[in-house]
Amino acid sequence: MPATSERIASLDTYDIRFPTSRELDGSDAMNPDPDYSAAYVVLRTTEGGDEGHGFTFTIGRGNDVQVAAIGALRDHVVGRSVAALCADPGSLSRDLVGDSQLRWLGPEKGVMHMAVGAVVNAVWDLAAKRAGKPLWRFLADADPGWLVSQVDFRYLTDTLTPDEALELLRRGRQGAGDRAAALVHRGYPAYTTSPGWLGYSDEKLTRLARQAVDEGFTQIKLKVGADLDDDIRRCRAARAAVGPDIRMAVDANQRWGVEEAVAWTRALAEFDPYWIEEPTSPDDILGHAAIRRGVHPVRVATGEHVQNRIVFKQLLQAGAVDVLQLDSARVAGVNENLAVLLLAAKFGVPVCPHAGGVGLCELVQHLAMFDYVALTGTTENRVIEYVDHLHQHFLDPVVVTGGHYRAPASPGFSAAMKQTSIDTYTYPHGTFWAADAARAAAAAPAATAAGAPGQDTEVPA
Amino acid sequence: MPATSERIASLDTYDIRFPTSRELDGSDAMNPDPDYSAAYVVLRTTEGGDEGHGFTFTIGRGNDVQVAAIGALRDHVVGRSVAALCADPGSLSRDLVGDSQLRWLGPEKGVMHMAVGAVVNAVWDLAAKRAGKPLWRFLADADPGWLVSQVDFRYLTDTLTPDEALELLRRGRQGAGDRAAALVHRGYPAYTTSPGWLGYSDEKLTRLARQAVDEGFTQIKLKVGADLDDDIRRCRAARAAVGPDIRMAVDANQRWGVEEAVAWTRALAEFDPYWIEEPTSPDDILGHAAIRRGVHPVRVATGEHVQNRIVFKQLLQAGAVDVLQLDSARVAGVNENLAVLLLAAKFGVPVCPHAGGVGLCELVQHLAMFDYVALTGTTENRVIEYVDHLHQHFLDPVVVTGGHYRAPASPGFSAAMKQTSIDTYTYPHGTFWAADAARAAAAAPAATAAGAPGQDTEVPA
Repeated sequence: MPATSERIASLDTYDIRFPTSRELDGSDAMNPDPDYSAAYVVLRTTEGGDEGHGFTFTIGRGNDVQVAAIGALRDHVVGRSVAALCADPGSLSRDLVGDSQLRWLGPEKGVMHMAVGAVVNAVWDLAAKRAGKPLWRFLADADPGWLVSQVDFRYLTDTLTPDEALELLRRGRQGAGDRAAALVHRGYPAYTTSPGWLGYSDEKLTRLARQAVDEGFTQIKLKVGADLDDDIRRCRAARAAVGPDIRMAVDANQRWGVEEAVAWTRALAEFDPYWIEEPTSPDDILGHAAIRRGVHPVRVATGEHVQNRIVFKQLLQAGAVDVLQLDSARVAGVNENLAVLLLAAKFGVPVCPHAGGVGLCELVQHLAMFDYVALTGTTENRVIEYVDHLHQHFLDPVVVTGGHYRAPASPGFSAAMKQTSIDTYTYPHGTFWAADAARAAAAAPAATAAGAPGQDTEVPA
Repeated sequence: MPATSERIASLDTYDIRFPTSRELDGSDAMNPDPDYSAAYVVLRTTEGGDEGHGFTFTIGRGNDVQVAAIGALRDHVVGRSVAALCADPGSLSRDLVGDSQLRWLGPEKGVMHMAVGAVVNAVWDLAAKRAGKPLWRFLADADPGWLVSQVDFRYLTDTLTPDEALELLRRGRQGAGDRAAALVHRGYPAYTTSPGWLGYSDEKLTRLARQAVDEGFTQIKLKVGADLDDDIRRCRAARAAVGPDIRMAVDANQRWGVEEAVAWTRALAEFDPYWIEEPTSPDDILGHAAIRRGVHPVRVATGEHVQNRIVFKQLLQAGAVDVLQLDSARVAGVNENLAVLLLAAKFGVPVCPHAGGVGLCELVQHLAMFDYVALTGTTENRVIEYVDHLHQHFLDPVVVTGGHYRAPASPGFSAAMKQTSIDTYTYPHGTFWAADAARAAAAAPAATAAGAPGQDTEVPA
């Protein structure tokens, strides 16, 4: 129980970047060479002890801009009562989203909105730690009326009212204790994207796809969208490797316009793709609806780049998605994701969260597990994305065995990175990047002579 | 004609803020105390001479984040051939929008997208200066095929193809010479928001509304949405002041949800509002469509916060708007606004640009004038917003007389601020802000004693 005089003493930010582009991990049709990064925030209190950790995921350049945006929220946070914050994270969420001057930079989208998400998630991490529970259980144990109070219904009430949300949460509480026990026993279903990165050879794809099945996954995912002939060849190889009973999703990462999305997806239909993910711009609600009509029975999935609850609302209103892929660090944190989960529950659309990157698996598992235990009560047709990258940098990394996420037991949101990882990968002065710059400087005269000045972290051909 | 060896030598940024909150200029239901600001960029070349100026408009806090985002684009710009840039600004626009790592921060929205807009607009400023023409004429004189090449059709081709765009531009060229002459002679119709800020007294509102009519304006605009009784009283006073024949628009600045927007607008219908502007979230395409059905015959207008061409496309597809209010500095600059103008032209929806703030009138007049001269060929039901604020800081300020914008004659995009204004209002070290901080520091002990620590630029009660 925090002392009533305890305040937030500091909001510290870190620009952390991992050189993932060098291995083509994470390569897809729109993101050929990501350096998985975190704009990371730590809230410390006047009494010491538990800290709140949160972050925004980015893929390299611009992580400094994201860090600056988080810093712009500092004055809203430092000095606040820890007890009041933990009792009502929504009050901070509303203040951050509603800052009338900062709001102009969105509103409720992009860099500024993701910064709000990082800070709000750090507060939930702190609140769950202070309650001594992993976040999923902290949420599942919460009073339904209190959960409703944590949601910003502005721009939602034509579709979801507070009373409807309360009813959904009250129904969700029935049997929650049994489901929590089942979750701890069995875990939550996962699918894996690890085999399907676009930069991988067919041999590596096939090998990793077989391995995924051996490990107990019942769904894999392949990146598509750069070249149709390549996609046909890769889908054929993957389908042959996993057999007819494993679900195989494909992901275009926003590569196409509407007509192209329909044509391309139809051309892959013979390989029985389970869903086509991000076929076009995440902003194109009506486009997704048209694509869904055009590619049936292939399902349409999107959400990792959907900017806020208002766009999710419309994707559901327009019947534009079969699968909703919320992301833990794209919208304004847990509070807005509660709204998204409630919207999906009302429409009966399964949520299969986006994960991967750095730390996204660690965060989002809590939201899906809460949804199962205390909202929709089911994992049918629901899977959390899993990518086996960078978990070693976290203090409480995800555990995935037998194709299932194991329920976290440690208090908090599983967001905290190891201090050694922070020290090593902070950009540009952490030990890895400083050494990298020294190597580049030593090699520079040769590179210039070879006619390649100004290149930085290019992927080797 | 630039030397072929001429390159962009530098991209310099400035955080410029004007203390407008102290006079309640610009106050509305969502933005009670804006400090009108510009994240300002100057491109200088290796040969000196003409510079390219551009900016993003913000309302205060966070302008530093916007400046950081513009700085993140520096490496894409510095070192480029000036001749190549001026011959094809679209090549830079595509590189900036398409930077695969920075794209993650949007995509194509918010802080990062506005930063692209500032830089792209600075390139157009430079290109028009080098051509010796004001931007509106530079665009109107351009080859239709070249203009089509400047548009990014990604995510648009289900609605607008390059061939359709070419046809619209070719038709627009017929009679363009006569319309250019008419424009220079008569100007372009304006409307004024100056009377209607929410923080103004009824007396000031009435006086400024009468004055607007006396000055030749045929349309005014009032801010609404904070309190219905106040709005009814203010609309009645304004309607009485201007008489029945002046168009009176009302603007809610995103204050409402869908049902509230319909109910509130209907409650104001007796005062014959010409349009209801930003009734709800700019992201709510389906919400605007529902509101439009609910408030007919009052028109629905939005656009100043619409993030990109993809959302504009859908607002038109869904029949959600009667009036499209593009903004010069919200989307990715002239290139994306060409797409928006073409979409509006295809759907026959009039464009009435958003302006005001700082410098937005200066920029957007060029886009509306190009639209009249060489695209839609008409000013019927079209007006550019005008607010008489802060023009004195610009080297080539707008001239509005008799309710019309006069066509700019100076080469460029009218974006350049006076050096003295930059020096005075750069935050926090410009002379105004340094003196302000010194005043605040001197007054601080008294303020603390009065129990108001930590307040900064509050509006006097």
